[in-house]
Amino acid sequence: MSLRGVIPPLATPFRADGALDLVSFEANLESLAAHDLAGFLVLGSNGEAASLDEEEKLALVAASRRLLPGRFLLVGTGMESTRGTAALTRKAADAGADAVLVLTPSYYKPRMTAEALRLHFEAVADASPVPVYLYSVPAFTGLPWPPGLAAALAAHPRVAGMKESSGDIALMGRLVASVPASFQVACGNAPVFYPALCVGAAGGVLAVANCAPRPTIALHRAFLAGDHARARLLQQALTPLAAAVTANYGVAGLKLAMDLAGLRGGHVRSPLLAAPPAALDELRPLLERANQAAS
Amino acid sequence: MSLRGVIPPLATPFRADGALDLVSFEANLESLAAHDLAGFLVLGSNGEAASLDEEEKLALVAASRRLLPGRFLLVGTGMESTRGTAALTRKAADAGADAVLVLTPSYYKPRMTAEALRLHFEAVADASPVPVYLYSVPAFTGLPWPPGLAAALAAHPRVAGMKESSGDIALMGRLVASVPASFQVACGNAPVFYPALCVGAAGGVLAVANCAPRPTIALHRAFLAGDHARARLLQQALTPLAAAVTANYGVAGLKLAMDLAGLRGGHVRSPLLAAPPAALDELRPLLERANQAAS
Amino acid sequence: MSLRGVIPPLATPFRADGALDLVSFEANLESLAAHDLAGFLVLGSNGEAASLDEEEKLALVAASRRLLPGRFLLVGTGMESTRGTAALTRKAADAGADAVLVLTPSYYKPRMTAEALRLHFEAVADASPVPVYLYSVPAFTGLPWPPGLAAALAAHPRVAGMKESSGDIALMGRLVASVPASFQVACGNAPVFYPALCVGAAGGVLAVANCAPRPTIALHRAFLAGDHARARLLQQALTPLAAAVTANYGVAGLKLAMDLAGLRGGHVRSPLLAAPPAALDELRPLLERANQAAS
Amino acid sequence: MSLRGVIPPLATPFRADGALDLVSFEANLESLAAHDLAGFLVLGSNGEAASLDEEEKLALVAASRRLLPGRFLLVGTGMESTRGTAALTRKAADAGADAVLVLTPSYYKPRMTAEALRLHFEAVADASPVPVYLYSVPAFTGLPWPPGLAAALAAHPRVAGMKESSGDIALMGRLVASVPASFQVACGNAPVFYPALCVGAAGGVLAVANCAPRPTIALHRAFLAGDHARARLLQQALTPLAAAVTANYGVAGLKLAMDLAGLRGGHVRSPLLAAPPAALDELRPLLERANQAAS
Repeated sequence: MSLRGVIPPLATPFRADGALDLVSFEANLESLAAHDLAGFLVLGSNGEAASLDEEEKLALVAASRRLLPGRFLLVGTGMESTRGTAALTRKAADAGADAVLVLTPSYYKPRMTAEALRLHFEAVADASPVPVYLYSVPAFTGLPWPPGLAAALAAHPRVAGMKESSGDIALMGRLVASVPASFQVACGNAPVFYPALCVGAAGGVLAVANCAPRPTIALHRAFLAGDHARARLLQQALTPLAAAVTANYGVAGLKLAMDLAGLRGGHVRSPLLAAPPAALDELRPLLERANQAAS
Repeated sequence: MSLRGVIPPLATPFRADGALDLVSFEANLESLAAHDLAGFLVLGSNGEAASLDEEEKLALVAASRRLLPGRFLLVGTGMESTRGTAALTRKAADAGADAVLVLTPSYYKPRMTAEALRLHFEAVADASPVPVYLYSVPAFTGLPWPPGLAAALAAHPRVAGMKESSGDIALMGRLVASVPASFQVACGNAPVFYPALCVGAAGGVLAVANCAPRPTIALHRAFLAGDHARARLLQQALTPLAAAVTANYGVAGLKLAMDLAGLRGGHVRSPLLAAPPAALDELRPLLERANQAAS
Repeated sequence: MSLRGVIPPLATPFRADGALDLVSFEANLESLAAHDLAGFLVLGSNGEAASLDEEEKLALVAASRRLLPGRFLLVGTGMESTRGTAALTRKAADAGADAVLVLTPSYYKPRMTAEALRLHFEAVADASPVPVYLYSVPAFTGLPWPPGLAAALAAHPRVAGMKESSGDIALMGRLVASVPASFQVACGNAPVFYPALCVGAAGGVLAVANCAPRPTIALHRAFLAGDHARARLLQQALTPLAAAVTANYGVAGLKLAMDLAGLRGGHVRSPLLAAPPAALDELRPLLERANQAAS
Repeated sequence: MSLRGVIPPLATPFRADGALDLVSFEANLESLAAHDLAGFLVLGSNGEAASLDEEEKLALVAASRRLLPGRFLLVGTGMESTRGTAALTRKAADAGADAVLVLTPSYYKPRMTAEALRLHFEAVADASPVPVYLYSVPAFTGLPWPPGLAAALAAHPRVAGMKESSGDIALMGRLVASVPASFQVACGNAPVFYPALCVGAAGGVLAVANCAPRPTIALHRAFLAGDHARARLLQQALTPLAAAVTANYGVAGLKLAMDLAGLRGGHVRSPLLAAPPAALDELRPLLERANQAAS
C-alpha cells in the first residue's frame, strides 16, 4: 500500500440537480477496479471535495471501502482548520481509509508560513490513526510549497509521503533528494508524469487515470522497465488529454472524458460550470490517441 | 441599514485549546455596541469563518442578534459550493442576519470565470430571504474581481452591494461608476479607506474598527463633513495600525490589538499562529497614535 | 520647476518605416506648450525610450529644450547599468534637461534588492549635474517598489522626488508619509490621479495629458481649489480614456488619441504593433467625454 | 554546429571600477576551450549583456571568434526594438557569430502578444545573415512564452531553435512535440537539465557549465548513453551548485564559483552587487561535490 504506481483521484458524479450520484460513483469504482492501479483517491480536488458536506464525504469513503476490498484507499481530509482536519481524518479512518491526503490550508495565505504548515501537519498526524500524505496544489491553493517542509515532516512516524501537483520538476527533484527513501512523493500533474518519474517520483495521482487508466499505467510500466523511449511517447500521447481535462476544462472536462471512456462522469456541482458542447468533439480524438499509444 | 459608515468585521475569540469562546465574543459585542457603528459583520475573514463549523457559526449569529437588537447585522455565508452557500444563507437569516456577505468561491480558481461567479451569486440571491452583499478579497482567494460583474449582479433585486477588499482604488472607482447609486460599495482595506471614500465608497468594513473604532468613525465623519485635511491625517494615523493588524500580523495581531484596547481578542485557531510577543510592543504605540488622532 | 501639476510623458512619433519623426514631435511640443502644464517628460515609457538609440534620445532632448524655453524639462535616462545611466544623465543635462527621471533597472529582477537599487540611484545622483527623480513602473519592470527606499534616497541632496506608476494608492500614501515635504511624489497612473492627490501626490505625469491636457489640468485645479465633487467627476470622465490609452491599447492607442486630438501621434516602433482600426471608434467618444467634462 | 550538447553562457569579467576586463575573458575562453563543449554563448544573461554597450559587446564577440576558431559561437543580440536587434545581429555576424540568440523584448509586457513577438522574430530572422535561436527567460523578462509561437517560427528558414530557461518541463515537452526535429530546443535551467533531456531537449545552455563543465558534460553523455541512473545522480550533484550560482546569488555567485574553479570571474557591473563573503564558503563544497560526481 503505497504511492508506487498510478492512482486515480476519483471524480464525484452529481445529478442534474446537484445531488450526489452515489450509484454512478459505485459503477465507476467497479469499472476502475479492473485495472492494475496502485490505489484510489477519494475526496481529492478532482472529486470536488471542496463542494461536498461531511455526510456526503463519508458516504463516498464507505462506498469506496466496500467496493474496493484489499485495495489501497487514500482519502482527502484537508480542511481549513487543524481541528476540522483532525476530526475528518479520524472519521475517514473509521470509514475505511487506509491513509489520508492532507491539503495545505490556504485561506490565510500570508500567514501560512512553513512553521504554521509544519505545526498543522504534525497536529493532524498526531491525531491520525492512519498514515498521512501531504498535498500541495498551488493552482488551487495559491500557496507554493516551502522548501524544507517535506524533509522536516518526514521525521514524523505517521507522515508517509506527499502528492506534489505544481508540476515543477525542479521542486520534485529537490523534494525527492531531501527525504528518506521511505517517504514517497507522487506526481499530481499528468503532463510531467514521465519526467517526474525520471527525477524520482514514486508514482502518480493523476486525473487522467480516471478516463485513460491503460496508457497512464503503461507509462509507469515502461519507465520501470527502463524503456524510456516508450515512456516518452506515452507521455506525449497523454499530455494533450491531460491538459484538456485539467488546465483547459477542469473537472467538467474530466467528467466528459469519463463519459467517452464508458464511465459515468455525471454533472459537476455549481459553481463549476458544465463544459461547452464542443469539448466532447475535442476530447474524443485526444482520448483515442492516448489509448492507441498504449496498445 | 446599509454599508454607509463603519462596520467592524468581528473577531472570533477562542480559548487556548481552540474552543469557541462565546463569552468573550459577547463581551466584545457589548463594548462595541456603544460606538456609532453602521453595523456589525459576523463570520468574515477576520472572524476566522474558514475555521468554524456550522454550529459555531450559527451560535455566533444568534449571540450577535440577541446582543445587538435593532443594529444592522451582516453575516458571512460564503462556502465553496453554491448549494452550501444558499443553505447557510437561509440558516443565517433564520438566526437573525439582516443581510449576508457572500465571498467568491475560489478553490477552482481557473474555472471561476465571470460567468461562473455570476450564476453562483444569482443562485444564492434567489435563495436568500435577505439582501446579499458580494465580497471580494483577492489576498485570501487569489481571485481578482472580474470587471463588469458587479454591474451585472446589481440588476438582481436582492443584491444590495459589495465589500471590495483588494485595496485597488482604480477598481473601486470603476465599480462605483458602474453600478446604480442604490448599490453600495464598502471598502474592506483600511489603508485606503479615505481615498476609497473620495472615489465613492459608501463606507468601510475594516478590521481596525474592532480595536480602534473611534478614529475609524472619525475619519468617515471628517470625510462626510468635507474636512479632507482631517480625514487625510486620520488615515495617516490609522494606516500603520491597520497594516500591523492585517498585512504584518493578520488576525493574531488584530486580537492582540483588541486586548490592548480593552476588548477580549482571545486566541486564534490553528493553523493560524499566535503573534510573537514583540508584536504587543509594536502595536501599543500604533494604537495610541490612532486614538490620539481622533481626539 | 517641480512635479506640482500635470506633466505629459511625451510620445515619440515614428514614420511608417520606423524612423524617428522629429518634425511631428516638434509640432506636438508647440501644440502642448500652449497649455498650463507643469513641465514635460521626454524619454519616458510612453516615449518608447526603450526602443530609441542614444543619438535619437539626445535629438529629442535638444528639440524639446529648444522649443520649450523656460519650461521644466524632465528627461528619462534610466539604463540597465549604473554607468550607462550616469553617462546618459550627464549627456541629457548637457542637452538641456532640467532634471532626470531614472527608472529602476530591472533585468536582473531577483537581484534588484532595496540595497542594490539604493546604491544604483545614489551613484547616478552623485554623477548627475541636475536633480534626479526616481521612477517605478512595475507593469513594465515587474519590480515592486521596496518600502523605505524613497525615504532613504530622499536624504541625497540631488534626489528630488519620484514618479510612482503602479497605481497602488496605499503605497502612494505610505511614500508621501515617509519623505520630507520637499520630496515630491508624482502619480504616473491616470485612473487614480484624483485619489493620489487626496493622499498627498504633488501632481501627475500622465499619458492622457498628451491627448487630453485640458481635463487633466482641470482635475488638478479642482483638487487645489478644494472642489472634490468636480475633481471626482473629472476623474470619472478621464478614467475610460486613460485606461484605453494605457491598459487596453498602450502607446499605439495613445498615438491614435493624439491624432484625434489634433496632434501627430505617428506610428509606433516595432515590436509594438499598431492599434486595430476599431480603436479609433472606441477612442473618439472617450476623448470627447473627457474634454466635455472640463468645459 | 548546433545546440546538441553543453554550451556555457560565458560570464563577462569586469574590473573593480566596472571596466570591461577583456584579458580575463580571454583567459576563460582558453581554459573552457579545452572541454568538449558544443559551443559558446557570448552576451547572454549571465554575460551581463544588459549592462554592456555596443562597443563592448562587439569586442567580446571578436575576442571569442579569434580564440575559438572552428567552434560554434552563439551571440546574444536581443534589444528592445526590432530595428536595434536586427542591427546588432548583423554586426555580431560580421564580427564572427555563427548564430544569434534573440531574447524576447519585454519592456512593454502587456503588448508583447504572440503576434507581436512573432513579427519581431520574423523581422530579425529576415535581416539576419546567420541562424537565429529564440530565447525565453521569464525570470528576467517577466514574460511567459506563448504556446504555439515556436511552432509558428520554426517555419522560417533561418529560425533554427530555441533556448528555454523557465525550467517548466511541461512547456519543454510541449515545445519539443510542436516543432520539427530540425528545430532544436536547449534547456537554459540547470536544475532540470536531465529531465529536459528526457522529454526531448537537444542540450543545455547552462551557467554552471562555466564553473563546472566536466559534470555538466558528463550528465549529457550519461543521458546519451542511456545511463539514466548516472544522469540522475549527476543532476542531483549539480543542482545545489546550479541553484547557488543562479537563484541564490546570481551572476555574482557564478563569478565566485569561476574563481574557485580556476577561472577569472572578476567583478560584476553595478547595479549588480558582489556576493557576500560567506558565499565562497557555501560554493566551495557544492563545486567539489559536483566535480566528484563526474569522476
